Amino acid sequence: MSIAAAQVQNTSVITVPVPLGDRAYDILVGRGLIEVAGPRIAALGARAAAIVTDEHVGPLYAQALSQSLQANGLRSSVITLPPGEATKSYTSLERVCDAVLEAKIERGDLVVALGGGVIGDLAGFVAAIVRRGVRFVQVPTTLLSQVDSSVGGKTGINSRHGKNLVGAFHQPSLVLADTALLDTLPVREMRAGYAEVVKYGLIDDARFFAWCEANWHGIFNGDLERDEAVAQSCRSKAAVVVRDEHETGDRALLNLGHTFGHALERITRYDSARLVHGEGVAIGLNLAFRFSAALGLCAISDAERIEAHLAVVGLPTRLSHVPGGCGTVDELLDAMAQDKKVKGGSLTFILAKGIGQSFIAPGIEAEKVRAFLTGEINASRS
Amino acid sequence: MSIAAAQVQNTSVITVPVPLGDRAYDILVGRGLIEVAGPRIAALGARAAAIVTDEHVGPLYAQALSQSLQANGLRSSVITLPPGEATKSYTSLERVCDAVLEAKIERGDLVVALGGGVIGDLAGFVAAIVRRGVRFVQVPTTLLSQVDSSVGGKTGINSRHGKNLVGAFHQPSLVLADTALLDTLPVREMRAGYAEVVKYGLIDDARFFAWCEANWHGIFNGDLERDEAVAQSCRSKAAVVVRDEHETGDRALLNLGHTFGHALERITRYDSARLVHGEGVAIGLNLAFRFSAALGLCAISDAERIEAHLAVVGLPTRLSHVPGGCGTVDELLDAMAQDKKVKGGSLTFILAKGIGQSFIAPGIEAEKVRAFLTGEINASRS
Repeated sequence: MSIAAAQVQNTSVITVPVPLGDRAYDILVGRGLIEVAGPRIAALGARAAAIVTDEHVGPLYAQALSQSLQANGLRSSVITLPPGEATKSYTSLERVCDAVLEAKIERGDLVVALGGGVIGDLAGFVAAIVRRGVRFVQVPTTLLSQVDSSVGGKTGINSRHGKNLVGAFHQPSLVLADTALLDTLPVREMRAGYAEVVKYGLIDDARFFAWCEANWHGIFNGDLERDEAVAQSCRSKAAVVVRDEHETGDRALLNLGHTFGHALERITRYDSARLVHGEGVAIGLNLAFRFSAALGLCAISDAERIEAHLAVVGLPTRLSHVPGGCGTVDELLDAMAQDKKVKGGSLTFILAKGIGQSFIAPGIEAEKVRAFLTGEINASRS
Repeated sequence: MSIAAAQVQNTSVITVPVPLGDRAYDILVGRGLIEVAGPRIAALGARAAAIVTDEHVGPLYAQALSQSLQANGLRSSVITLPPGEATKSYTSLERVCDAVLEAKIERGDLVVALGGGVIGDLAGFVAAIVRRGVRFVQVPTTLLSQVDSSVGGKTGINSRHGKNLVGAFHQPSLVLADTALLDTLPVREMRAGYAEVVKYGLIDDARFFAWCEANWHGIFNGDLERDEAVAQSCRSKAAVVVRDEHETGDRALLNLGHTFGHALERITRYDSARLVHGEGVAIGLNLAFRFSAALGLCAISDAERIEAHLAVVGLPTRLSHVPGGCGTVDELLDAMAQDKKVKGGSLTFILAKGIGQSFIAPGIEAEKVRAFLTGEINASRS
């Protein structure tokens, strides 16, 4: 038996079901899952698979995955794209759609997304529209994509009018979250993904947040706690998605920390050297709770506890932590006003009555946001 | 009261419901419907509409439609594209998606397709993917699009690998089939659309075929029979689509005449000067019944009756009617083998036991098709 096969045998796999009726699927979480991807994917019954990946991830895993699929009877090909957000473009969409058609992928066949959120979003969208929909499998290779973008079926590309403005809801047939792939993830990316893990506790699961406080070392080290954190995050997101697949209501809870976070990403012009998505979310989570406290909704001690935990893992938590500055109050408000969640002179926020007690709060007056942000900016100067 | 308003009041509107659960919608059929499009569309409750049209149809109706929408409280804009199949491209897709976003169309708002099948397919696809899906309304302006492409939710663009290979299933919220718009349709386009009308009778409604034989003059003349023919065609297609929305079974019946027809379109290189889709379908319908007769499935007299009717309205019915020739047997078989309906050495045909008794016939050996086509070509030479 090879070492890889022995490791596989020792792997304990956690299965997270996503019960979406005739679009139901499983998320499998565990170390070394990519080693058994061939038989797992072949069990879906397709005859062919087109693997979509990027120039960072492809050289590490694409060939092995392709061979594993072929060994299990699937015709397989690899499409490799440049890494980075710019790949979520119309140009890539055409290129990948044509490559998938060139690979003779039929209705019953598969597109396999091997990469982070960019690859998952693009490949999922391609799968949604080639031949009006083929099946797809996600093999997310970052913590962020394992706990966030691989759950829920949102796919898409960016337009010059904004991010993710063109896309489809298309559920995967299977998600393989191999937590061993995170061993080589840069720590900054690991932290950024961790902000989304913490978010699930803050939304509606105070016990999970406390568990994160106690176990974050194990998550970062790649111990069994990492698998459990990924699985629990997927369970949390799946529960919300099942209640509201197409985001007409409850699914907005997943935007906790994101109204502030998206504004900061806009202000830093999506320059990942300054701020990545998860860092914006970390600051946003802290601000959402501080804003809730300022509105008298929640205890300031809850916000302080959250800030302390985000800080201990090395995440930014304050407007003053944004490299190059967060802009003026007016710039921040403008950036928020471009968000989908704005109606008239008021904004929709996700606020909280405490850790694990978040709720959708429509109709928050822009003036209250202004007063809060002014205080935050002044405090950072003093 | 204006003349237009008086005409509207005298219009009898036929409502064809398409009962697709939470995607249910109505097809309205009648003369002068475009005059009351504003209130009908406004009743859907949107705040804005982006009208997508082409350079032929737009100058005739787009401004009036836009004003009618605005008079009923909808912000409205017009996007005009070149006419013709080449508009179903990635380039147009990007252009229209960006124009719709520029027009600030939100989730609850509308894309309105004003044109024939090309505009309907493209605009419907844009509606399916902008913001992961906005609503859309079809105002089909050709007989073909009124009875075929505006029913059933198939949307899409062409790829260099083939027609309609990239797209989505996206049901409209409303279809307004104004039969008066067909008064100015070139007779060749009218005939081509009529081939699809006849098809519905041939699939499973012998009475409707007999009714067409008796009433085709009224349909072409714009009498009340035209409204009834459009409505009955929509009812027929809707019944099939409701049974099989995503084409996994019964919906293939709608391909009656299309395996031969698509092959002829390919051989004539989609050159509409030589052959338009409906002409290919007319020849294909006759061949499907002649092939069924050759296989001993149906009486040759049924095929002869169909051919006589198609000929009387001025449609081509034989391979020898293709301007510039239909190619050799091998070329025809090759063109059929490129069709989605081919598996291994056998083809899936829609065959018939008689008029109104069509069925899906998988596993028809290529050799039987070859023998039949050889006979057809030899007969045309003698």
